Order: sequence, then C-alpha cells, then structure tokens
Amino acid sequence: MEMKNTMNRNPQSDAPIIKPLDPEEFKRQGYMMVDFLADYIRNVSHYPVLSKVEPGYLKQRLPTSAPCGPEPIESILKDVQDHIIPGLTHWQSPNFYGYFPSSGSIAGFMGEMLSAGLNVVGFNWVSSPSATELESIVMDWLGQVLNLPKSFLFCGDHGGGVVLGTTCEAILCTLVAAREKKLSQVGKENIGKLVVYGSDQTHSALQKAAQIAGIHPANFRVIKTKRSNSFALSPDSLLSTILLDVERGLIPCFLCATVGTTAIATIDPIGPLCNVAKDYGIWVHVDAAYAGSACICPEFRHCIDGVEEVNSFSLNAHKWFLTNLTCCCLWVKDHIALTKSLTVNPQFLRNKASESKRVIDYKDWQIPLSRKFNALKLWLVLRSYGVENIRNFLRNHVQMAKTFEGLVRLDKRFEIVVPPKFSLVCFRIAPSAIIANGLSKGVEACYNGKLVNDEYMVNEVNRKLLDSVNSSGDAFMTHGEVEGAFMIRCAIGGTLTEEHHVIMAWKLVQEHANSLLGL
Amino acid sequence: MEMKNTMNRNPQSDAPIIKPLDPEEFKRQGYMMVDFLADYIRNVSHYPVLSKVEPGYLKQRLPTSAPCGPEPIESILKDVQDHIIPGLTHWQSPNFYGYFPSSGSIAGFMGEMLSAGLNVVGFNWVSSPSATELESIVMDWLGQVLNLPKSFLFCGDHGGGVVLGTTCEAILCTLVAAREKKLSQVGKENIGKLVVYGSDQTHSALQKAAQIAGIHPANFRVIKTKRSNSFALSPDSLLSTILLDVERGLIPCFLCATVGTTAIATIDPIGPLCNVAKDYGIWVHVDAAYAGSACICPEFRHCIDGVEEVNSFSLNAHKWFLTNLTCCCLWVKDHIALTKSLTVNPQFLRNKASESKRVIDYKDWQIPLSRKFNALKLWLVLRSYGVENIRNFLRNHVQMAKTFEGLVRLDKRFEIVVPPKFSLVCFRIAPSAIIANGLSKGVEACYNGKLVNDEYMVNEVNRKLLDSVNSSGDAFMTHGEVEGAFMIRCAIGGTLTEEHHVIMAWKLVQEHANSLLGL
Repeated sequence: MEMKNTMNRNPQSDAPIIKPLDPEEFKRQGYMMVDFLADYIRNVSHYPVLSKVEPGYLKQRLPTSAPCGPEPIESILKDVQDHIIPGLTHWQSPNFYGYFPSSGSIAGFMGEMLSAGLNVVGFNWVSSPSATELESIVMDWLGQVLNLPKSFLFCGDHGGGVVLGTTCEAILCTLVAAREKKLSQVGKENIGKLVVYGSDQTHSALQKAAQIAGIHPANFRVIKTKRSNSFALSPDSLLSTILLDVERGLIPCFLCATVGTTAIATIDPIGPLCNVAKDYGIWVHVDAAYAGSACICPEFRHCIDGVEEVNSFSLNAHKWFLTNLTCCCLWVKDHIALTKSLTVNPQFLRNKASESKRVIDYKDWQIPLSRKFNALKLWLVLRSYGVENIRNFLRNHVQMAKTFEGLVRLDKRFEIVVPPKFSLVCFRIAPSAIIANGLSKGVEACYNGKLVNDEYMVNEVNRKLLDSVNSSGDAFMTHGEVEGAFMIRCAIGGTLTEEHHVIMAWKLVQEHANSLLGL
Repeated sequence: MEMKNTMNRNPQSDAPIIKPLDPEEFKRQGYMMVDFLADYIRNVSHYPVLSKVEPGYLKQRLPTSAPCGPEPIESILKDVQDHIIPGLTHWQSPNFYGYFPSSGSIAGFMGEMLSAGLNVVGFNWVSSPSATELESIVMDWLGQVLNLPKSFLFCGDHGGGVVLGTTCEAILCTLVAAREKKLSQVGKENIGKLVVYGSDQTHSALQKAAQIAGIHPANFRVIKTKRSNSFALSPDSLLSTILLDVERGLIPCFLCATVGTTAIATIDPIGPLCNVAKDYGIWVHVDAAYAGSACICPEFRHCIDGVEEVNSFSLNAHKWFLTNLTCCCLWVKDHIALTKSLTVNPQFLRNKASESKRVIDYKDWQIPLSRKFNALKLWLVLRSYGVENIRNFLRNHVQMAKTFEGLVRLDKRFEIVVPPKFSLVCFRIAPSAIIANGLSKGVEACYNGKLVNDEYMVNEVNRKLLDSVNSSGDAFMTHGEVEGAFMIRCAIGGTLTEEHHVIMAWKLVQEHANSLLGL
C-alpha cells in the first residue's frame, strides 16, 4: 500500500487523514477483489454446499474488538478465504437446490458494482433523476416482456412499477395501501375489523406483513387447500371464508394469491379469485416471487392469466432472473392508492420538481426513505443477455427439472409427491419402500421411546435422507410439507447448474437412500 | 466477447445457452467496471453536482422496450457515461453538501462487491452461518467503539445489534416491537389508543413508520420545540403531552428521540426524556442516523449520554461512516421483544440450528425475510481504516465545518441561524441585509401580486440564493426550516471533500449573494 496515496494531512492539526476514495488505490483493490471473486466462482462447485461450521465458530477466530489501526486488504481477503468462506452456504454453487435459487450473473454483479460505486441516493427525482427515470423505464420494459396489461405500466394511465428489496416489502406496501383505502371508507377506528386472506401455501411474508401493518391476528385467514385442487387456493373456499367474516361484521381487505408457491410452486387461479374478491372491494396482490420470471416465456404466460384484474403483482428478479440480491419488482395498477398511504412530505425534501407533479418520487412507493440506484442491475441483465437468451436460460432449467423428475420416476422406491411445476421437483422415498424395508412395521411403532405411526416414520426417514444428502456437502436441498407429508424439494435454477450436476445430484440421493434403507 | 466462453448448448434442443457466470468474462468485465468507476471518482468533482436534466429526459434517449438479443458491456458503459451520468446528482462529489452525506469508500465498495459476488442469502443462521456470525461480531465491535452499555451487545445479556437498510426500517421494527409489547398488556383491540411521540424536528421516518404500523393518525404527536431550548425536545413538554393523552384515555407507547436532527443536528436530551418515558412504559428509540458516527470520538460521546436508559439505538453507517449504501446499525436491549413481534416460523425454514436456540436468525430482526451478507462492508471499513483513522477523518469534517462557519461569520450580510453542531452549518442572508438592500421594504410588500411580509421576503431571497448556487453546478446544498425561517444547510462529510472545497463553496455562496443583492 503506497501510503503517499492513501493519506492527507489535516491542515490545522497536521494529523494524518486517510484518503478512502483514492482512484489508484480503488483500482488496485478493485482488481484484487475481481480476481478473488472470479476464483470463488471457479472453485465454488468444490466447496461443501451447506456449511459445516458449528454455531459460534467465527467468534473463536476473530478478534473481540475492532482494530485501532488500519489493516491491509491482503490480510482481510485472506481472512475472507480462511474464515468467512467456510461459514457460507454456497448459493452460487451448481449443486445448490435449496429454497429457491438466487441466480447471480456477471451483469447483475456489474450493476451492483455500478450502484455501489456511484453511491447516489435516489429517494426523490431531484436527488438523482437518472436513478428514478431508469427504474420507471426498466419496469415498463420488464412489464412488457411479461405481457402485463398496460394498466400496470407508466405508459398506461395510473399504473407503474418500482424496484423494492423483497416480496415481504411488496406485500407490506400493498397491504398498507389496501388498509388505508379501506379505512378511508369505513373509518380509521375500524382497523381491528380488517381481514387478510391467504392459503396454507401462501408465503409467510403475508403473515409478517399483516403483523407489521397492525392487522388483528384473529383476522388473518389461512384458507386450507386440497390435493384434489393441486393445493391451489379455491375461489369457493375464499368465498365461504369471506361470507363468514362479513356475517361476523368483519371487513375483508386484502388477498395475496400466489403463482409458484414456496413449497410446491402451485398456481392460484388469479382470474376466478379476483371474481370473488371484487364484490367485496378486496385488494388482490399476486406474489409471483419465483415463478414470475418463467412467465416471460410464452408457454408459461398463461400462469398469470387474469392478472389484468388484480391490484398489484410482484416477482423477485433476484430469484430466477439473473439479478443479484436484492431486486423485487412490484407493479401496481393505481399508484396513487400506494403513494397516498406511504407519503410523508417533510420540509427538507420539498423541491420544485416534486411540486410540479411531473416526476415520480420513489420514496413514496416503499417503506424506507433512502434507496440506492436500484434499476441498474436489472437494466444490465436485460441488456447484457437479451430477452430471448434469458427465456432459453430459464427453459433449460425447466428441462433439467424434467430430467431429474424422470430419474426419480425410474426408481420405484421413490415417488413424486406433487406434479412438478416450473423447475421445482418435490419427491420422497415412498411409504411402501420404507415399510417394505422394515423401517416402519405397522400402524404404530416405538421410536426413540415415542409411540409413532407410519406417517411419522415415513417423514422421519425422508428427513434423515435429506440431512444425510446435505451433510455430504455435495448437494443441498431443502424440504416442504403438504398434508403432513415431508417432501424433499429440488429447486433447479442456479446460474452454474448444468445437466450433469442434476444427474449427479440424483445419484447422490440414491446412494444416501441405499445406505439409509440398508442396501 | 469470446462467444465460446459465454455460451453453452441445451443438451436436448441444442439451443445456445448463455454462461452468465463465466470466470474469465467475469474478470474482463469486472476490470472494465473498476476502471470505469476509478475514472468516475477521478472526474466527479468536474460534473455539475446537481443534475441539469429535465423530467422525462431519459425516455427520449433509451429504447422503449428491452432488447431481444444481447448487447456488449462496452455499449452499456458508453450509455452509462452518455445518458446516466448526466442524470445523476453526484453524492460523491467533494462539492456535495446537501441533506446528509453518503460517504462511500474503497472499503465500503469492496464489501459491496464481495457481498454481491458471493450472493448468499442470510435469512437464518443455517442459510449462511458466517453472514449471521460476522454481523453479530461487527455490531458488537461498533457498539464497543461507541461505548454503548453492555446491555446492547451480544456479549451482554439480552441485547444485540443488526444491520438494516435504513433508519425508517429501524424505527418501524422497534415501533412494531413496542406496539406488540404494549398490546400484550392492554389487549390487541386497543391499537387505536396507542400514542407515538416525536418533536417537530424528528425525522419524517417516524411519521411514516407510525402510518405503516397502523397507529391512528390522530395519535401521532409532534411536540413543538423552542429556540430557547436549541430546538431539542423538552422533557417537560413531553410530560405535559403524555399527561393530556393519559387523561383522554390514550396509551403512550413509543418515543423517538434524535441525536443530530435532520434540519439542524440538534440533540434531544436522552437521559431526562427517558426519566419521563419510563413512568409510562414508553419504548424509547434514539435515532442517531447522522451524528451517531461522531460519537465514536470521545469528545462527542456525551451526546448520547443516557443511552443506557433507552430501548433501542440506531445510526446510519452509510451516512458518515464510510460505508456505502445502505447500512443502518440498530442495537436493542431486549432482542426478544423485537423478535417476538417480527417472527414467523414457516415450515420451509425450520432447521435444527434454529430449534437449538443457539443461533441468531436475523430474519426475525427485520421487515423482510431475505437479506444479503450485510456485515461485510462494515467489517471492511473498520478493518481497512481502523478506528483511530476514522475518528480523525470525522474530526477533519468537523474542523472544515468550523472553517466554513468562521467564513460565514466574517461576512456581515450573513448570519448563522443556529449554533452549528458536528459538521453541519445552517446559515442565511440576514434579514437586515435584505431590507438594507431594498429587497424587502417594510412590514408588507407586494410580491408576484401577493401581499407578503418581511419574513416571507427574507425566506424568498434565501431560497433564490440556494437555487442560484445549486444551478451553478459548482456546489450543492439543501435547506431546512426552524420557526418559519428558511436556512441553507451546508452538511460537510463527503469522502472527497477537503478544506479548499469548503472555502470555494463559501466563495461561491458569496458571489451568488452579490449578484442577488445587486452588488
């Protein structure tokens, strides 16, 4: 480190003053980090996907207090390699099949670099006009690619899109908008009567948003879904739930429908649900966090049919759209309803552009005030790859899921628990295989001193299989549950995942099943 | 671009498949971006600080839809230079004195690169143990540097810290915790009776958080401050407001005190306010978004005296602590109160580590579920510069503010509106200078056809001065208001700002005042 470049002098006290943005030092360290990360990408498939560290490991390895003096980047990067990387669960590994993917890309990374380097705050138009304008443009671009109705776009009437952090924020913002819209009709004192609807497959973000927004916990409805209906939310069930609420003097307010649920990627029927909701003035939000990306392919677009009837729609580009964390795209049909509920207008932010009403101030579209230049990475992804390549990239994942599904179906000990959707395959060792192998012997058995039934044992064996696969470090999957059945989820979508990885992952599952079933 | 490196083939359809994480291409583009940003830093002082574009400018320059095919990074970077940069307000310019600074640094940037490159999700411990553990460690480090009582640290009893995005989130999370704590005592049906307290100097984030959390708008108290009290929130005023509320059957719930308010960086007296609040079981949060950073210097630490009595404390490391956007550090004394109100436990996230209760799951400390590896940049900042250098760096800004204040005081046409705190100087052309120059002639005058008084004219002239300075592009400041007086705020703290910039900025103000006052 050349100290002459990295230090100034305080003109009064002559104390040395660091130069934390020296361009030459920026380049030196920047190159070093690029090399470090290129090596990480090159090696990531060799790391155990699920970290093997024990709780508290890092405290043993790092000092108990911040250093008084500076340390060179070389030592810091060495510590990253030696102490941080072993504690990572490698979401960028081609062998990562857990949760839903976080599909990074060079373009997404470049966008993050640019946003971090420019380091502008874009809370309103004037604080960085291009941050606002690019976001509106790119949200219209992506909206068009999704074939969203014009009513959701800025080039339409009152619609438009915004880049938020996560689906939780998208649901919270729209729920608050719905709550305020409803309370403006029925009176603020009735907040305790508002009801929020989802299904037992809806993401927990809805419950959390309802908690934060002050919805009475007794008014949070989790509507049961059924296998006969592919675990989708049934409009009939929604209607009967609403009718009961209305009868009890409650006020239906908000429904979150899902396209691509967390456990099994099922698809709630948007149009029919809206038909029910509209009679009660319910705000309908569609959470398409994972599967929304696939809907840029014409063959999947039908999954969001009916979207023209909803109030708001969101997807996470950081899941399956090559955009690094975090990037949740939210479109609303009536942005005034949204901004009415989220706007505060402090003196220090007043400016002519905002008062002219000719500009968007995204601070009024989100929870926080401050925001980064959010749109860059999505813009870079769309431009660097182009829509057609992204479509083919997603299709390739769907194809790999079909390959995986085919392999599961070939092994009679296993079963596909629900018909796969998009790039998610949910499977388990079939109850028959477990009973046949004597791991469960009748209706009830004694297990660890507990009297348990077959269902419990089947779940327990599958849980063990998942633990065993994940402990190997060679692949990582997570679990889901429908009707009490524990399933292993193989969510394909990693940027580095290729067909041979998926085939290897299946072999790995088989090997661990062999040893578990005593073969 | 070497296509052989950037394309695979779909093994089924033979369609070309992009390789969005090819390590060689990653390096090539990464270097290019590092060079681009190093040039940006080198040139940023030459750009007009406040963007000169007009609303809608970017739509004229970009295509109306996303490209179907890929575009090279070279074209994209050219567009960034030609179309995005002119639309930026340059927060990294040494001549940026608006709002509060967003002080980026190489270390902060490197941390963002690392987080974006690793691209792991850290919602719970198991999803990336080092992301969680490093955050707990670094929050303890910074807490110690601030000399926070042990009760706020993980190494204490029930305390601990978390990295959130912004102060708005910190206030919302703690307000929800306070709300739930209170409602668990008085019953959920009483949400409409909860009262939230702040002063007329409190950041608008409090009002927004109260709106989102479902606090009845009639129960949001904005307590008036007085010049005689340096515009700090007076414990007596707080008490009398509370007493009125209690008399009316309302339930005091939450107080946000501020150390370094937005307009003038005043300091609410934490200890005395807590003395009042504790008798009513009010949760006290301290928002030290800007000035909290300075409190790492022993000579400023007294500004947060009394912090041992509060429930929670936050500062924005992305403001004045060299950590690139966004990084809000929140400490709480009772993390169970926080997590109780923010926890949801969906099936898909259940895991042994969480069930063992030996780990932190940061998802329960924040609004969203997903989160990046937040702690890296703060860790890199603390290590790359060391605590003593950061202290000197902040002191240097405070010193520059004193220089600027001295210059203002030398020009008798100007006045310092409130005694400067930290690195913020609030000034204006004095009413006497405006009246003497015939710009305002008596108690009332006709202005643009409106009958206005002296105060209005004084504000109008100062507003014009600020517009004139900002339009020059040579410096950027913003405004504040106390007791109806419009002030120009010069907030020093840019990473690249040196004394000569500050001296130039003052000369610029004088020149524009000369021409405005007809000299």
